[in-house]
Amino acid sequence: MSNKQYNVALVGATGAVGQKMLETLEKKNFPIKELKLLSSSRSAGKKINFKGEEYTVQETTPESFEGVQIALFSAGGSISKKFAHEAVKRGAVVIDNTSAFRMDEDVPLVVPEVNEEDIANHNGIIANPNCSTIQMVAALKPLQEKYGITRVIVSTYQAVSGAGNLAIDELKDQSQAFLNGEDMKAELLPVSGDKKHYPIAFNALPQIDVFQDNGYTYEEMKMINETKKIMHAPELHVAATCVRLPFFTSHAESVYVEVGDENIEVADIQAALANADGVILEDDPSNQVYPTPLSAAGKSEVFVGRVRKDLDNKNGFHFWVVSDNLLKGAAWNSVQIAESVIKNNWL
Amino acid sequence: MSNKQYNVALVGATGAVGQKMLETLEKKNFPIKELKLLSSSRSAGKKINFKGEEYTVQETTPESFEGVQIALFSAGGSISKKFAHEAVKRGAVVIDNTSAFRMDEDVPLVVPEVNEEDIANHNGIIANPNCSTIQMVAALKPLQEKYGITRVIVSTYQAVSGAGNLAIDELKDQSQAFLNGEDMKAELLPVSGDKKHYPIAFNALPQIDVFQDNGYTYEEMKMINETKKIMHAPELHVAATCVRLPFFTSHAESVYVEVGDENIEVADIQAALANADGVILEDDPSNQVYPTPLSAAGKSEVFVGRVRKDLDNKNGFHFWVVSDNLLKGAAWNSVQIAESVIKNNWL
Repeated sequence: MSNKQYNVALVGATGAVGQKMLETLEKKNFPIKELKLLSSSRSAGKKINFKGEEYTVQETTPESFEGVQIALFSAGGSISKKFAHEAVKRGAVVIDNTSAFRMDEDVPLVVPEVNEEDIANHNGIIANPNCSTIQMVAALKPLQEKYGITRVIVSTYQAVSGAGNLAIDELKDQSQAFLNGEDMKAELLPVSGDKKHYPIAFNALPQIDVFQDNGYTYEEMKMINETKKIMHAPELHVAATCVRLPFFTSHAESVYVEVGDENIEVADIQAALANADGVILEDDPSNQVYPTPLSAAGKSEVFVGRVRKDLDNKNGFHFWVVSDNLLKGAAWNSVQIAESVIKNNWL
Repeated sequence: MSNKQYNVALVGATGAVGQKMLETLEKKNFPIKELKLLSSSRSAGKKINFKGEEYTVQETTPESFEGVQIALFSAGGSISKKFAHEAVKRGAVVIDNTSAFRMDEDVPLVVPEVNEEDIANHNGIIANPNCSTIQMVAALKPLQEKYGITRVIVSTYQAVSGAGNLAIDELKDQSQAFLNGEDMKAELLPVSGDKKHYPIAFNALPQIDVFQDNGYTYEEMKMINETKKIMHAPELHVAATCVRLPFFTSHAESVYVEVGDENIEVADIQAALANADGVILEDDPSNQVYPTPLSAAGKSEVFVGRVRKDLDNKNGFHFWVVSDNLLKGAAWNSVQIAESVIKNNWL
């Protein structure tokens, strides 16, 4: 990489993902010339430290993006819809972590280990996939490449941080209330804008995001549609059940996949995963080695364990994928895209 | 039912399931003439109240079963192996909640709503299936009967109470430690007798029971093999991934099933479930109605929600099954078997 530096804006700087984006930019030593921290009017005025300097968060306006070359958006779909094109108009490349543009035909949806080359076709906006999708396709890609895949059925185990800082607080407060023998107040989850709220502490909620007319949740449809788009596999069969659980960080997924070859064995799948970019195989049942949400928290990679062959279908395999939903599932994947844009002169 | 009363022994009276068995016997007004509460030598001497009377728990010996007509066992497989035949020898019918005899050819494995008639063939021992199996087959049975089923893939979300009272304490202690910012002590889960222990609080452990040579856990193999036996469907394809989660009561399951008919719709599946014995359909996405571990806790039935058709396979359906693992998953199913034995003169 050259020594060039870039003007970067971060929209949604005070959120759970925004905080992780700042940590990631700092940790990866991203070449920032000037940094603008932006937010909704509600969070404007807050002070945030970055590399030892204090920044004041500013309210996002179209003019915020004057002179900005890279704009990271993670403040909700409505903010992205309102301001992403304003940023592009002013010459920025937008890397958007919301679902606003993910399925737009002229917007690349990118997990760099899977389809980095799609970034080249961007028209100003590059979308960061849904957290639960990213870690799954990172694990599916090496299997698709080596053996072909025809079918995926996934059940997820998702952390509350995917619903933001307030959901983290809600899990903490409810957990303490329950341990104290008090009633739990449910005011946010499963979906802040939905009609009913249920306790998440010591519970499991089979609803992430709002229900669609077909009975699937929006989160499930995101996993289904985004997986096909990222993997360039419109004919791939994908089914998803998404469940919110009482832990803070990392999503886990129980994945069933059918590959295109009946002669593949567990060792082949393990080898493909062990050699894949961004994937770490943690799979040794005899020593109880497998990833968990706690073991993956704070790490950038996607961890896979519990690889085993289906007992009835020779081309079927089951495995368990875990990754930090705020890092590879959001902040790190976005920064990776930004690094790729720079490295490949795709600005 | 007649007014006849029976001498009943309960082995494992001080355990998590044993306590629920006592509550269930009392609540269902089971016709008990004389009750013996038995345990290991470790718990002998403890006092337990039943219907206002105080009982002293006695150490289990072969002679404990003299005069006993119905013996409920729930004190671990090794105790069952040691004493079940002694009880049978003395004329008792044993209803065993451990895995000791479940796969024995001459031992019926029974969920009354599914295969009550198998009880007639018992030779003294009737096995109660694994908790996670019971609730799944209760939901699969009406589909098998009406449409035939060919394939099941399940991912479980299981409560710590399935691992006993000490696991309940461990989740409480770890949760409080975490909220206090202290280290969590992991001394029991995922499996008390295994080499390593991991925190369960704010985590997910993809291991329930010990690993088998094929990479599956014993819990997963129980679900696979017991389902085929109970449903009399040796050719049924069953795959399972079992995960322990940080909640106290009720197991939840994400189930994918393929039925024998491509013309079935969601409403057909819902109708079959709504009409099934022991199953309650809680499925109204537009009003966010679905079962959760907390909503099912303390109830005897099996709750099903989130029924939807696979988007690629016309004969594929997904649903979400929740039930109290200590009640229908253990105590209530055992007492149901005992009631059936009496009602049908199968003593």
